[in-house]
Amino acid sequence: MSKRKRAGGRAARHALRAATNRNKPSPIKAGARGGQYKPLTDDECQQIHNTALDVLEQIGMGTPIPELVEPAVAQGAVMKDGRLCFPRPMMETLIAAAARNITLYARDTKHDLFLGKEQVYYGTGGAAISTLDFETGNYRDSTLLDLYDFARLSDQLSNVHWFTRTVVATELPEPADLDINTAYALLAGTNKHIGTSITIPEMVDPVVEMFDIIGGGSGSFAARPFCKLHSIPIIPPLRYGADSSYTILAAIKHNWPITCVTAGQSGATAPATLAGTLVQTHAETLAALAMVNIWSPGHPFIFSNWPFVADLRTGAMTGGSAEGGLLNAAAAQLGNMLNLPSGVAGGMPDAKVPDMQAGYESGIPNVMIGLSGANLIYESSGMLASLLACSYEAFVINNEVAGNCLRAIRGIEVDHETLSFDVIKEAVMGPGHYLGADQTIKVMETEYYYPPLGNRVTPTEWAENGSQDVWQVARDEVKRLMRHYPSYITPEQDAALRQRFDIRLSADMMHASGRWR
Amino acid sequence: MSKRKRAGGRAARHALRAATNRNKPSPIKAGARGGQYKPLTDDECQQIHNTALDVLEQIGMGTPIPELVEPAVAQGAVMKDGRLCFPRPMMETLIAAAARNITLYARDTKHDLFLGKEQVYYGTGGAAISTLDFETGNYRDSTLLDLYDFARLSDQLSNVHWFTRTVVATELPEPADLDINTAYALLAGTNKHIGTSITIPEMVDPVVEMFDIIGGGSGSFAARPFCKLHSIPIIPPLRYGADSSYTILAAIKHNWPITCVTAGQSGATAPATLAGTLVQTHAETLAALAMVNIWSPGHPFIFSNWPFVADLRTGAMTGGSAEGGLLNAAAAQLGNMLNLPSGVAGGMPDAKVPDMQAGYESGIPNVMIGLSGANLIYESSGMLASLLACSYEAFVINNEVAGNCLRAIRGIEVDHETLSFDVIKEAVMGPGHYLGADQTIKVMETEYYYPPLGNRVTPTEWAENGSQDVWQVARDEVKRLMRHYPSYITPEQDAALRQRFDIRLSADMMHASGRWR
Repeated sequence: MSKRKRAGGRAARHALRAATNRNKPSPIKAGARGGQYKPLTDDECQQIHNTALDVLEQIGMGTPIPELVEPAVAQGAVMKDGRLCFPRPMMETLIAAAARNITLYARDTKHDLFLGKEQVYYGTGGAAISTLDFETGNYRDSTLLDLYDFARLSDQLSNVHWFTRTVVATELPEPADLDINTAYALLAGTNKHIGTSITIPEMVDPVVEMFDIIGGGSGSFAARPFCKLHSIPIIPPLRYGADSSYTILAAIKHNWPITCVTAGQSGATAPATLAGTLVQTHAETLAALAMVNIWSPGHPFIFSNWPFVADLRTGAMTGGSAEGGLLNAAAAQLGNMLNLPSGVAGGMPDAKVPDMQAGYESGIPNVMIGLSGANLIYESSGMLASLLACSYEAFVINNEVAGNCLRAIRGIEVDHETLSFDVIKEAVMGPGHYLGADQTIKVMETEYYYPPLGNRVTPTEWAENGSQDVWQVARDEVKRLMRHYPSYITPEQDAALRQRFDIRLSADMMHASGRWR
Repeated sequence: MSKRKRAGGRAARHALRAATNRNKPSPIKAGARGGQYKPLTDDECQQIHNTALDVLEQIGMGTPIPELVEPAVAQGAVMKDGRLCFPRPMMETLIAAAARNITLYARDTKHDLFLGKEQVYYGTGGAAISTLDFETGNYRDSTLLDLYDFARLSDQLSNVHWFTRTVVATELPEPADLDINTAYALLAGTNKHIGTSITIPEMVDPVVEMFDIIGGGSGSFAARPFCKLHSIPIIPPLRYGADSSYTILAAIKHNWPITCVTAGQSGATAPATLAGTLVQTHAETLAALAMVNIWSPGHPFIFSNWPFVADLRTGAMTGGSAEGGLLNAAAAQLGNMLNLPSGVAGGMPDAKVPDMQAGYESGIPNVMIGLSGANLIYESSGMLASLLACSYEAFVINNEVAGNCLRAIRGIEVDHETLSFDVIKEAVMGPGHYLGADQTIKVMETEYYYPPLGNRVTPTEWAENGSQDVWQVARDEVKRLMRHYPSYITPEQDAALRQRFDIRLSADMMHASGRWR
């Protein structure tokens, strides 16, 4: 499915294990194929796309950097009143040239993500400045250690398919410290595909240098990039941001896959009608695609239209609404119409704690968006307070939410065998039930997803076990998972990294397991 | 839209109020049109339907009552080894003759439900024997007073579109007492469309007598039936139940609309494959349709295919799974393929309390099933422990879950105005944002659903307000709503009912408001 570089013995063993894992019967899998839910008709998709192309042609993008204007104009763009306008034929050429069917690599190949059409993966994202403290239940500033701990959690949760930074190390105000140490925490915590942001363009080269040390030497990251860059090059409405533009320009040189998030908020920085929001955010995402593909046609680029919603009573962002589910499902449908790898924002509860509100605010949007066939559903684990905070307990519960969503996306297999005419006849003429039937035993592990935390016992058993809610159950699960201290950075790599960079996570800090007892 | 009997002055005023309410701008409405989500392809629907017809023709239904066999055989059915088999042409004739586009009346016409194709309503159902006690947080036996209180709650919650019995009055072991008093509690608590079950066929006439007293005299209920009958005439796999068959026969004489629930459990009383479960439950629902339409072609009948799921590790029912969402969404799709009024089971959490599990276990299936275009989504409020219990707090939170689902189902309106090209141009060339724009002010009340309970304040405000989770917030809401004591039974009707029947809910019991302080 994916392009791989030539593999030696170790890589071959990895590939074998990956294949084995993939063939193991399982009720759910990463990359299940969505698309059964279409919030828009084909004609409505086309209307939105056409209007977005009109916007790019007639209104254009403000504040493009000179390094973009020059090649863009050479390729057919027009500067009008200081705005870079893209004629429709040019946009169509750029869209046609954009990358498709890309693979997001992981350090362990079994976690590689192939972004085929409508194949769905759930993962994380965000830049939460708060963490719901595990001990006190209060909000406090997020730290670098939180980031490492969330990475370790993601490493063990099968329905978190990659790990993009969830929280900001708020104790590191210097961009250089922040970017280097964020990358280190991710690399130390998981060998799944990771994602990070770069605060200033100058940090691209040093972070790639880190990745090269991990990847096996200079150029190794470019050959098999195991991290995607999250960049926000658009300031809505319809302007380019300079810092992010230069960051992207620098990242392209290293073959660094790019997720350009365009996150206009309906009613605040985008129109208040859902259709209007989609027109603008789709146009903005196309403007990001244009920038990347003008500089480097076919560069690995994820079409990340993340329409956000403002609560218009206050102007504050709301992350868990049905409108958000609709908008992001529609954004995925628009990406799929163009057959582009897509990334959208999942359910980001407004709830402040892992309560029933957090459950439906993550569940409803996440299943809608998954069924719509978005490739990457960001922010799907642990987020609370409309992205302001992340919670350990919610993180592990969201793993089950994603499990349920993946089962829903897989759908119902209909064929001669599953239709079961003969099985029905046998049960009716025989025992009058299906318990213990050959078919039942055969499919019970493949047809049904059994949630590890979700309570399915009788009320009596539940009461005997202490009448716990899932928040309490999740606390025990977090403690259990926090005993996992992976060794994804070899001592040699670690020494090299610490010699070259100011790494703030010490071995002592990382292994202070007492924190989780 | 719906057939109405000739209306006097009062009815005309009601109709006007209903029209006004319906025209009031609102982000969500009862009867939103689903169908954007299709878990099955058209061909897969046809395969399931065809196999179900094969099942009815070749395996048939066991234990039909003689009153069914005689007219069925006269219409083309065949008795084979004691089983009633329906040849395909006969079934197709019966399906064609079945009722379509029916209206479920309410005592207040503004709550009438028109079951047009794919129009979605959320409501209740169930026969929970336990209630999550509001004071102690423990499970206890459900009572008649609980039923009255849940009816009063439903009466004030705009996204509970009808009220079918949620809990059983466990203190009434005698069928006669149970059926009469269940009906009384529903009638006293709400003037929305209601639904109830009848324990033994002999109770049909007395309960209709009650309804006639409420409706304005003998025959008034048949002219405008404001209650539907829940009956379970199928014992899976593929047998008719005698008591329910006779109940249905008796109800038909009173023009009582019938929901024939067929609730096979995958892997226990239905095949373990999801497709096989659908074949059987679809066949069983068609067998119920056949029974009703053989006796009375075109009788108001809701095609209620409720495929349930067994957890095959224990054999116990699970109500909150993604498989349940898939099966019931597919059941709705099959009903819609035949253009029949449909009823399915919604998300029935396995969770024991209103926690994050209850949130995603109700949210995920309820939005899937709503988007699939089921007419009636039963069990959508308050159910816990896989239908064993009902909770007051969950009941009011589920009103918001349904609100979010209805917003999702409404979808995105795409037209020249909503696409907003000019609005975007104005914002870009002008203030650079949309806050306070004419369009924003115009659509803020119609485009967005603002959940009354869901927390959207800042973490600081939340902490200042006592760091409550939604379960706690819901407790205050329940107390507030429980101050509502409707007078839907006039003193004259009440006197007549109490003279004729042994009504157990006394005025003192019903108004013991101290219970809710």
